[in-house]
Amino acid sequence: MKTLIAISLTVVAQLGTSVALAAGHDSVAAAPNGIEFPADYRDWRVISVSHRVDHKSMRAILGNDTAVAAAREGRTNPWPDGAVLAKVVWKEAPEEHWSAAIAPSQFVHVEFMFKDAQKWADTGGWGYARWVGDGLAPYGKDVAFAQECMGCHTPVKDRDWVFTTPAVMPVGPSH
Amino acid sequence: MKTLIAISLTVVAQLGTSVALAAGHDSVAAAPNGIEFPADYRDWRVISVSHRVDHKSMRAILGNDTAVAAAREGRTNPWPDGAVLAKVVWKEAPEEHWSAAIAPSQFVHVEFMFKDAQKWADTGGWGYARWVGDGLAPYGKDVAFAQECMGCHTPVKDRDWVFTTPAVMPVGPSH
Repeated sequence: MKTLIAISLTVVAQLGTSVALAAGHDSVAAAPNGIEFPADYRDWRVISVSHRVDHKSMRAILGNDTAVAAAREGRTNPWPDGAVLAKVVWKEAPEEHWSAAIAPSQFVHVEFMFKDAQKWADTGGWGYARWVGDGLAPYGKDVAFAQECMGCHTPVKDRDWVFTTPAVMPVGPSH
Repeated sequence: MKTLIAISLTVVAQLGTSVALAAGHDSVAAAPNGIEFPADYRDWRVISVSHRVDHKSMRAILGNDTAVAAAREGRTNPWPDGAVLAKVVWKEAPEEHWSAAIAPSQFVHVEFMFKDAQKWADTGGWGYARWVGDGLAPYGKDVAFAQECMGCHTPVKDRDWVFTTPAVMPVGPSH
């Protein structure tokens, strides 16, 4: 009987956990610098894509409305305050039915750059954040994690710290 | 005086052309099967990305609202009527400041699949269309062009003719 109760309690506890997790973004912890997870990022529009062959990963670079407007108008050095860039990263894998096409497989992480020249003056005008794995665990133990971000981004300091060049997406004949 | 009038007329004619071209998608010709260019495609949301290493090109796969909803709910075999998939294709190039990242350079074309099982029954339930280059010239001389599309897509006939598997984009902890 004790065993049965113990099993039942375990089941209840697991159900409780599942319900809590099913709540979704409510349960995503903030980044160490206080940035909250932008739960609507997958509804943002595409700015570019990339394939890190050194890292064997595929990327979609998305932008919020402010970032997309800036990208389309060439206002990217500097990007305007309020612009947010997202980079969604997946492990690479050959497409099942066209092996010469490399496509996303497992989700790795999604990382963000929030532009606010004053608020984030200590990190080049950008607030960095990354959430890792399907569980979206915030990256970094404390605010020092952003130094690692800046270290990698230093080669593009003169491009307002951004590697991505917005990809051309024509909507009418060139003129 | 005649020369001045001639020059003036030329200027006016060129201005007229510029204004017409600036109108953008109004001047994009329809595909041979009558499909009109979906001028808002760059505002659609991302479904996946790919890198055709055989074709040295990068791709973003976008979807209209119906397609994105279907992708997120796993209703992709078959995709629902009204779903439209876009594939934006660029030539590949190493990213200037991180050469192990392959990124888009020149725009090649944007191609679409319009799902309507009845309307496009002759081409597997999908209406195909492609516009090429910055000038967005419609691809194909007549409706037979779609046979070429179907030929390449035959390996995925059992996946409702679609190569792309929607990429995972979590919005909350996995459960």
